[in-house]
Amino acid sequence: MAVDTFDTYLAEKTAYIEGKLTPALEREGVPAALYESMKYSLMAGGKRLRPMLVLAVLEAMGKPIERGVPFAVALEMIHTYSLIHDDLPAMDDDDLRRGKPTNHKVYGEATAILAGDALLTRAFSHIAEAYRGRLDVSAHTIVNLIAELGKRAGATGMVGGQMADIEGESKSLELHELEFIHEHKTGDLLIAALRGGGYLAEASEQQMEKLTRYGYCIGLAFQIQDDILNVEGDAAELGKAVGSDAERQKATYPSILGLAESKARLDALITEAKAALKDAGFAHSALSPLADYVRDRKK
Amino acid sequence: MAVDTFDTYLAEKTAYIEGKLTPALEREGVPAALYESMKYSLMAGGKRLRPMLVLAVLEAMGKPIERGVPFAVALEMIHTYSLIHDDLPAMDDDDLRRGKPTNHKVYGEATAILAGDALLTRAFSHIAEAYRGRLDVSAHTIVNLIAELGKRAGATGMVGGQMADIEGESKSLELHELEFIHEHKTGDLLIAALRGGGYLAEASEQQMEKLTRYGYCIGLAFQIQDDILNVEGDAAELGKAVGSDAERQKATYPSILGLAESKARLDALITEAKAALKDAGFAHSALSPLADYVRDRKK
Repeated sequence: MAVDTFDTYLAEKTAYIEGKLTPALEREGVPAALYESMKYSLMAGGKRLRPMLVLAVLEAMGKPIERGVPFAVALEMIHTYSLIHDDLPAMDDDDLRRGKPTNHKVYGEATAILAGDALLTRAFSHIAEAYRGRLDVSAHTIVNLIAELGKRAGATGMVGGQMADIEGESKSLELHELEFIHEHKTGDLLIAALRGGGYLAEASEQQMEKLTRYGYCIGLAFQIQDDILNVEGDAAELGKAVGSDAERQKATYPSILGLAESKARLDALITEAKAALKDAGFAHSALSPLADYVRDRKK
Repeated sequence: MAVDTFDTYLAEKTAYIEGKLTPALEREGVPAALYESMKYSLMAGGKRLRPMLVLAVLEAMGKPIERGVPFAVALEMIHTYSLIHDDLPAMDDDDLRRGKPTNHKVYGEATAILAGDALLTRAFSHIAEAYRGRLDVSAHTIVNLIAELGKRAGATGMVGGQMADIEGESKSLELHELEFIHEHKTGDLLIAALRGGGYLAEASEQQMEKLTRYGYCIGLAFQIQDDILNVEGDAAELGKAVGSDAERQKATYPSILGLAESKARLDALITEAKAALKDAGFAHSALSPLADYVRDRKK
């Protein structure tokens, strides 16, 4: 897929997914401020990378992407809740996200905590409700989706990564500690997206393994590129200050490995991600330019 | 069931359930502080009323109570996460719960938020993992359990009730507003317990309706008795101060209806709960003395 074709692909899929998010929220019987707060963060933009991965796996296996929508939406709800809670004063204490005031700045802390809780809860009930009774998705598959998502989003996954990140702020980290944080805080939800797509498309065991490896590689690559952009990115394009990691003495790939070695590691991960795709028979799918995108993005 | 027999029943079931909680937490790959924080609140005592209801429905229908354990444990995880988040400084700002320091007082706010998030997530993945592949619980039933739990715990249920409660603190409430709060903040998770037990025991539609009604009634009754105890309870037995609601000018049943009318309403709800049990054929089950217990408890 050529770069300009892929840009169009990304734009189309983002618009497609964004149209599915708000309708998946419950509205009737929900206090207005809670609903507004959930919707505010869910619709606050972003790359929609996790939903994209679900749809791309289905496409790669010749299945209708519509089948992935409820799971894709659930992933974006979980990603959104994690950002709301991460931004809280007791956590990272951020006032802005993607150039907009964070949830608790707009709705207050109590509502922000509850909006996060409600989005997390809705992710699971939405999967159960939206797939229940469908002929193309078995109850067994629904249970697998929920087990997968819970494992990757919870204490052994994303929440565990966030915990390690908070603990790591007050000390200097070794590379394996930094990688534990990224593997879980970022990588696990990407892996859930890919494996969820695999369950929905009835991927083989071998394909599931390769998708998992691909997700692990692009998850780490994503974070390395984040760290590199914080050193040499364009503040205007990024929409945030560069050099902030060094200022805060935050452990990053460049601070541990140096810039050149970080770039080499990034390249190696993208190469490995693509090898995994080839092994699974997905070399010509959108997952391949998606890996390049993770490395080459400027914001 | 005689009162002393029922006390023994409660004690036995509480001990049985408490033995199932910690083993349901993931440990490997979980940062130690996160695991400890989750376990601290999960094992901090309490009536274990929600798990008890699951087991009682199974018993009432002649099914093995063991079948209810993963769902019962998940309910207690969700109840526990809600207490951790409710106690946060941004919410009720409580330092003590059941005579012990609250989670954030022991582990800090960031860890408490994450422990709550992880318990909520684990509730869903535990149901999926523990029941998956069992011969006595179909995948279809697992999906129903998760949909039920999500609906009752999320924005249309418990979280919505908590939101209304926070919004109500700054104004005087009418009775229907107070009942909305209790129906959702307390009642919905009790209803989830009963309906979940019903799904697991293959209850009829009519039995599910009656269990729902029973749950609604004992949920409101529970809160009315809470409010009454805050007026005329014994501080030593309660383990907390009485009169605190009046001091804070909190809207309660006694403040809206008066004490005598509140007691009459409590009695009427227990009578209605028992009538629902009788209609469902559960008049001689432990659910009947459980309803009395909700009214007659002194703490």
